[in-house]
Amino acid sequence: MINFEYHVPTKIYFGPDEFSHLGKEVASYGKRVLLTYGGGSIKKTGLYKKVLEQLAQFDLQVTELSDIDPNPRIESVREGGELCKKHNIDVVLAVGGGSVIDCSKFICAAACSDIDPWEWFTPTRPKVTKALPLLTVLTLAATGSEMDAGAVITNLATNEKIGRAFPQLLPKVSFLDPTNTFTVSPFQTAAGSADIISHTLEAYFSQDKDLFFLDTFMEGLLRTVIKFAPRAMNKGDDYEARANLMWASTWAINGFVNGGKTQAWSVHPIEHEVSAYYDITHGLGLAILTPHWMRHVLAKDQEHTLPKFVQFAEQVFGITSQELSDLDKALAGIDALQTFFVNDLQLAPSLSKLAIDTTHFDAMAKHAAGQAGVIHGFIDLYPEDIREIYQASL
Amino acid sequence: MINFEYHVPTKIYFGPDEFSHLGKEVASYGKRVLLTYGGGSIKKTGLYKKVLEQLAQFDLQVTELSDIDPNPRIESVREGGELCKKHNIDVVLAVGGGSVIDCSKFICAAACSDIDPWEWFTPTRPKVTKALPLLTVLTLAATGSEMDAGAVITNLATNEKIGRAFPQLLPKVSFLDPTNTFTVSPFQTAAGSADIISHTLEAYFSQDKDLFFLDTFMEGLLRTVIKFAPRAMNKGDDYEARANLMWASTWAINGFVNGGKTQAWSVHPIEHEVSAYYDITHGLGLAILTPHWMRHVLAKDQEHTLPKFVQFAEQVFGITSQELSDLDKALAGIDALQTFFVNDLQLAPSLSKLAIDTTHFDAMAKHAAGQAGVIHGFIDLYPEDIREIYQASL
Repeated sequence: MINFEYHVPTKIYFGPDEFSHLGKEVASYGKRVLLTYGGGSIKKTGLYKKVLEQLAQFDLQVTELSDIDPNPRIESVREGGELCKKHNIDVVLAVGGGSVIDCSKFICAAACSDIDPWEWFTPTRPKVTKALPLLTVLTLAATGSEMDAGAVITNLATNEKIGRAFPQLLPKVSFLDPTNTFTVSPFQTAAGSADIISHTLEAYFSQDKDLFFLDTFMEGLLRTVIKFAPRAMNKGDDYEARANLMWASTWAINGFVNGGKTQAWSVHPIEHEVSAYYDITHGLGLAILTPHWMRHVLAKDQEHTLPKFVQFAEQVFGITSQELSDLDKALAGIDALQTFFVNDLQLAPSLSKLAIDTTHFDAMAKHAAGQAGVIHGFIDLYPEDIREIYQASL
Repeated sequence: MINFEYHVPTKIYFGPDEFSHLGKEVASYGKRVLLTYGGGSIKKTGLYKKVLEQLAQFDLQVTELSDIDPNPRIESVREGGELCKKHNIDVVLAVGGGSVIDCSKFICAAACSDIDPWEWFTPTRPKVTKALPLLTVLTLAATGSEMDAGAVITNLATNEKIGRAFPQLLPKVSFLDPTNTFTVSPFQTAAGSADIISHTLEAYFSQDKDLFFLDTFMEGLLRTVIKFAPRAMNKGDDYEARANLMWASTWAINGFVNGGKTQAWSVHPIEHEVSAYYDITHGLGLAILTPHWMRHVLAKDQEHTLPKFVQFAEQVFGITSQELSDLDKALAGIDALQTFFVNDLQLAPSLSKLAIDTTHFDAMAKHAAGQAGVIHGFIDLYPEDIREIYQASL
């Protein structure tokens, strides 16, 4: 039985002509703005200047927090929260990709709280009850953070990378201009596309009674990424490719595809341990692990997983030959995805290519299974399953 | 170049277990509620009683407006607006299908305005600037009014049926419980499904540079309706079928599929004249007219319309035989849609079966083309085109 709530009030401005609304929108939330961004690529592209011009039109007082890292750190959250308190910030404007936006979400929360921000990620799991309003200008199609309520924060001191979500963290307004992703490198485009695919697959592979309608949506979304990611890698300023990737990235994870499903994600927690231990690009880790996760769960419980793998092969990759058995189709679909990651997206095929060895596999597998000792995903995965998936991905 | 704004903050509760949130949600908007509904089928099904129980839990004061007609009349809008003023209503709760919800939207506006409500539909076209909050409990999968900002109101005195949309009219919260559609008759299920298909096609057939991603979404939505409408007609309490139709109906018209398109709808204004003159079921009129509209625009401007008709045939009906020419594919796709309407949905194949003749065709064609004298749709349609479509539909 399908029951769910869907409520995604984020306002989206899509396309270059919509950027002129930025100043007005930020100003509607207050006078004192914290502007957050990453390593400064927005200064090279000219976006930084355009943002400041928009804010200047409304005489907004701007405080800046730069150098937010990929896999954003709890230290940046603390620093941002303190800046907000010190400067009595009204609204946060995040300009960047998922890392900058994720970090800014918990900065918004930290600004309104007296606890140390890492407490939100500890086993006591207090709730975020209040946060400053967040607006975003997206520069990378990947995480979907621009229209969802979640964020993933890394604590390198404890080798932990943990995601949490609260409705208070949902951005109020997000500006999605595909031209702001023209300068994204082929590698980052590929890693972002792998992230989009993974978000979709985490919802798609479920044993809940799915809504066929949402399956068709996810299959179309996957075909969109498979069609346009190589085009965007090949020609960075291909507007149609960038626009399709950008809007698809948002909808892979804004809650729509989940409609009524209870099951948790599988590959993301498995990958988060790799990123936490080795600080690799999240999407790259997902691309390496996903096909091995697929083969593992198919082999472990073919009875319950085969039909969806067959549907995936048929609807996403058009593998419909009547000469193939269902199992052959399923395996061909998995192979096709891996080939897409390695050949089309040119992503590394294995963990060993990233100089990762078995050293931490036991600890990573245990962490990935979490407090409960099991990932309740498409099928249940225990630490020994997770370790086997790491091993197969070497 | 694709630019658009997307902002659909309606909160959705989907599924029977979510109904328990109704009282709390209504109460959050005030104490005095106007409850609107149609001919009383909600009393037969028990939904009326369940709604009142929810409202009673929060001691809400309920005023009722019943007997809202299909193709809702401006008189009901006036009556509802006056009731709101007289009883100092805080919030309107519409329980019904698109007609009840559409009517309630302009009741919400009329409650906050001193102009006669028909003025919003006259050529001066004043704007709605304020409206009471609206919540809905949906009982028919068809119009999508539960998550969009538009409404269509009929004035039988002037034979006019006019739609307008304002962000203020967007429902705050909508309750979508597929079990509330179990008792919808096969005919109304079919007509509603034709409406969903038509909403989708109005956006799909466009010469704007489309987002491939949205095309895949619409093709999946169409396949969903084609798969489940006959099942719901055959077995009214098929939850999976009802759930798919309900969520698809919402997304066919809540703004998502339009992303960046500038073109206006074609078949809806042509059909609205038929409903306005003959008071027939809207979805039935759409089912009759749509295939003839398709053949007319394909014949009139094959160069610009053929590729999208081929895509439609391939992606929606799986007509991919390499032996067919593009034109044959396109025509086969149109035929397949007409066959679906007539054979699977068991809808009347022609206007003459509804005792409609040519009497008003000239006036209807002129009205449908509106003030501008032309419908700027997939291709431009002038009164003579529209008249030919009526004639072909006889």
